Amino acid sequence: MEVRKILLTEDEMPRQWYNILADIKMNPPLGPDGNPIKPEDLAPVFPMNLIEQEMSSERWIDIPEEVLSVLKIWRPAPLVRALSFEKALDTPARIYFKNEGLSPPGSHKPNTAVPQAYYNKVFGIKKLTTETGAGQWGSALSFACSQFGLECKVFMVRISFDQKPYRKSLMATWGANCIASPSTLTKAGRDILESDPNTPGSLAIAISEAVEAAVTDESGETRYSLGSVLNHVMLHQTIIGLEAKKQMEKIGEYPDIVIGCAGGGSNFAGLAYPYVCDKINGREIEIYPVEPTACPTLTRAPFAYDHGDSAKYTPLLPMHSLGHSFVPAPIHAGGLRYHGMAPTVSQLVSEGLIEAKAVNQLAAYKAGVLMARTEGIVPAPETNHALACVVDEAKKAKEEGKEKVILFNFSGHGLIDLGAYDKYFSGKLKDYELGKEEESKFEACLEDHPKPELLKSC
Amino acid sequence: MEVRKILLTEDEMPRQWYNILADIKMNPPLGPDGNPIKPEDLAPVFPMNLIEQEMSSERWIDIPEEVLSVLKIWRPAPLVRALSFEKALDTPARIYFKNEGLSPPGSHKPNTAVPQAYYNKVFGIKKLTTETGAGQWGSALSFACSQFGLECKVFMVRISFDQKPYRKSLMATWGANCIASPSTLTKAGRDILESDPNTPGSLAIAISEAVEAAVTDESGETRYSLGSVLNHVMLHQTIIGLEAKKQMEKIGEYPDIVIGCAGGGSNFAGLAYPYVCDKINGREIEIYPVEPTACPTLTRAPFAYDHGDSAKYTPLLPMHSLGHSFVPAPIHAGGLRYHGMAPTVSQLVSEGLIEAKAVNQLAAYKAGVLMARTEGIVPAPETNHALACVVDEAKKAKEEGKEKVILFNFSGHGLIDLGAYDKYFSGKLKDYELGKEEESKFEACLEDHPKPELLKSC
Repeated sequence: MEVRKILLTEDEMPRQWYNILADIKMNPPLGPDGNPIKPEDLAPVFPMNLIEQEMSSERWIDIPEEVLSVLKIWRPAPLVRALSFEKALDTPARIYFKNEGLSPPGSHKPNTAVPQAYYNKVFGIKKLTTETGAGQWGSALSFACSQFGLECKVFMVRISFDQKPYRKSLMATWGANCIASPSTLTKAGRDILESDPNTPGSLAIAISEAVEAAVTDESGETRYSLGSVLNHVMLHQTIIGLEAKKQMEKIGEYPDIVIGCAGGGSNFAGLAYPYVCDKINGREIEIYPVEPTACPTLTRAPFAYDHGDSAKYTPLLPMHSLGHSFVPAPIHAGGLRYHGMAPTVSQLVSEGLIEAKAVNQLAAYKAGVLMARTEGIVPAPETNHALACVVDEAKKAKEEGKEKVILFNFSGHGLIDLGAYDKYFSGKLKDYELGKEEESKFEACLEDHPKPELLKSC
Repeated sequence: MEVRKILLTEDEMPRQWYNILADIKMNPPLGPDGNPIKPEDLAPVFPMNLIEQEMSSERWIDIPEEVLSVLKIWRPAPLVRALSFEKALDTPARIYFKNEGLSPPGSHKPNTAVPQAYYNKVFGIKKLTTETGAGQWGSALSFACSQFGLECKVFMVRISFDQKPYRKSLMATWGANCIASPSTLTKAGRDILESDPNTPGSLAIAISEAVEAAVTDESGETRYSLGSVLNHVMLHQTIIGLEAKKQMEKIGEYPDIVIGCAGGGSNFAGLAYPYVCDKINGREIEIYPVEPTACPTLTRAPFAYDHGDSAKYTPLLPMHSLGHSFVPAPIHAGGLRYHGMAPTVSQLVSEGLIEAKAVNQLAAYKAGVLMARTEGIVPAPETNHALACVVDEAKKAKEEGKEKVILFNFSGHGLIDLGAYDKYFSGKLKDYELGKEEESKFEACLEDHPKPELLKSC
């Protein structure tokens, strides 16, 4: 009988993360003075051990034993052959996915939440603040903080806070405190509420609030934690791709195409970067980050220097950006509603090493329902975007009559996002596409910023 | 580093179920004429291949390949050492659990939903009806039906339907149709609504509706499916205990105590019966089914002949019963709100081979929150009842200074039941205990039924 799941034992787990900064050239982040920022500039926001990791260019970085011990609650994650999904698509492609939905909060996010909580704990920090979109990241950090005995405060984008009340309950179950953003607790939040009391909120606003809450705590025992975008976050997520490579090797497979949805970029990077490394070394492979047409950071926004948050608290990052004041349409994939993109993902797109795709919401849900009715598991709204691209590629393989191997990241399950499936079935979900006229707005927001250099790594 | 999860490969999955009917004596179910029912009496309700299984006394029954193939979507389930939970309890006990929360619907229920859908399909059935309490069973059957291309209609106890709206969405995602019970679709439902329009509903009522909907479909292509209580359901669940035995053998452990929560009895039986078999053969082991004090079937109700449903459509089953007209208090563990208990579980209690425990709701949630904050995973309300008993036993082991090995069934996760955790944290959850005066009511409901014999199996 055919095997569905390719497993690794706990002993076979990767012991090091892969750092893509060893293999690509990057523009530096810039401080308020326009000069590259120094480690000490970030010290009020992050603990120094994580800042060092953020700036490291060592190719392999050891995973601490204490981190591995917690990751083992759910890792190694199975590599699954999507046999029934393939059959339904009648494709000659062989489709595999990493199931990151088996973690306690149900997504890939704890892969970095756990090491971030650990490094903060080791540095003597007592409390973390963060923001969350769909709630996956806030849940993950709440879980990680409960493992290491840290306090946790989460600013949740209002539209998701209202749409997904169970997320707040989940964070409370792990002992965390979740607040709708914008809130009146921070200056950044109050300013936004004053100008737009009915704002649905955005990740950029919530980040401003969480950063402000961390740096204004006079005890010095609070830091901020970010669930995507930054180099160390991508680094921690590479355990996904490193496991996948070991698992595919066991069955003598290697992917022709690697796919992940991309909001800030971390679940995509986690699966893809070990394969990007192979591509840099000459291997032929297609690698696709997939974003929603409602928030087309990689496919329509310029590669620019921009802030990661609406209040401009963060350094200027070299990234594809719709502009830090952009508030995306209220699609259900809250984790993909971000104006920017990880600088490393942006760099790879600008170099042509990876190729971004955009899909719309209805196609995403259609693919998600097919997944649920074939493979059984119900995907998160974000994951549905990767699935829509998988469907497209599986159909292309059929047209071309090619036995392609497709690997994608099942970034999380949708059991706490079922309201969106209800809307889909009742016809209330709609597609959003940015009008051409919108483009001038985000260009305007970026125009007084410096421009990143167009670097070529290989 | 200590291993957290003891895994089996798909190749190591059990190939046969264990049938406890080979090893114990049972009173027969009785028909309306007071005589033991014959297979053909059940033919309008179940397909004949499942009826044969229900009545079989063969000790080992082969698991069909097609069933194994679907079970492999999530099985074998990991055996987990609850290291952090032990540490928090400061107990010398070693605590292990089977994590049944990794199935697509999030509980142990698909272990029987999948074979039931398969046997119906093979028998030529096109549509299944069923009832569901908390929604775990209805979700599981919806999932299983989507795997085998069957239609599925689910009558969901109204109080859970209202408390857990995501369950309905989940069933819809798998293509099933979920209706609040009592409904106006059946005579049984209409009768109840007429006498009590605001009833919270009960499993007994929902069973009546689902049975009626199946047997009144004149096409002959509809059957009814039950998620607990019956012999074949217990049989299918034994894959849990059979896997656990293999896993514990790998690390040289054998449990002193086995614990599972018990509503209809299936998750308890699934883990426990392979160990009951050892006990019958002379092995020393304590085995505890755990029920809520609000619905104390095993601990306070008589061992009697009673109907499985409120409208008396089912045969008389020899079981502990609070009376088929009993409507339990609205505790959140909907899966434990049932007036009866599996006849085999009831028989084992009446023989003293297993010993029932009852715990209250607040103790259950307290134990569940400790689990979430130590092992990371958030338990279902039902599972919390098993956990409360595990906590009691771990404390006892500490008092006695004994290194006991405790094995329990983590029957499902609570990610779709988070509303109850909210209520717990806000102090709105309360304990229910049946008054002494209630006992006369269930005695009265049973008094004109025949009495089962007190049989001794060994």
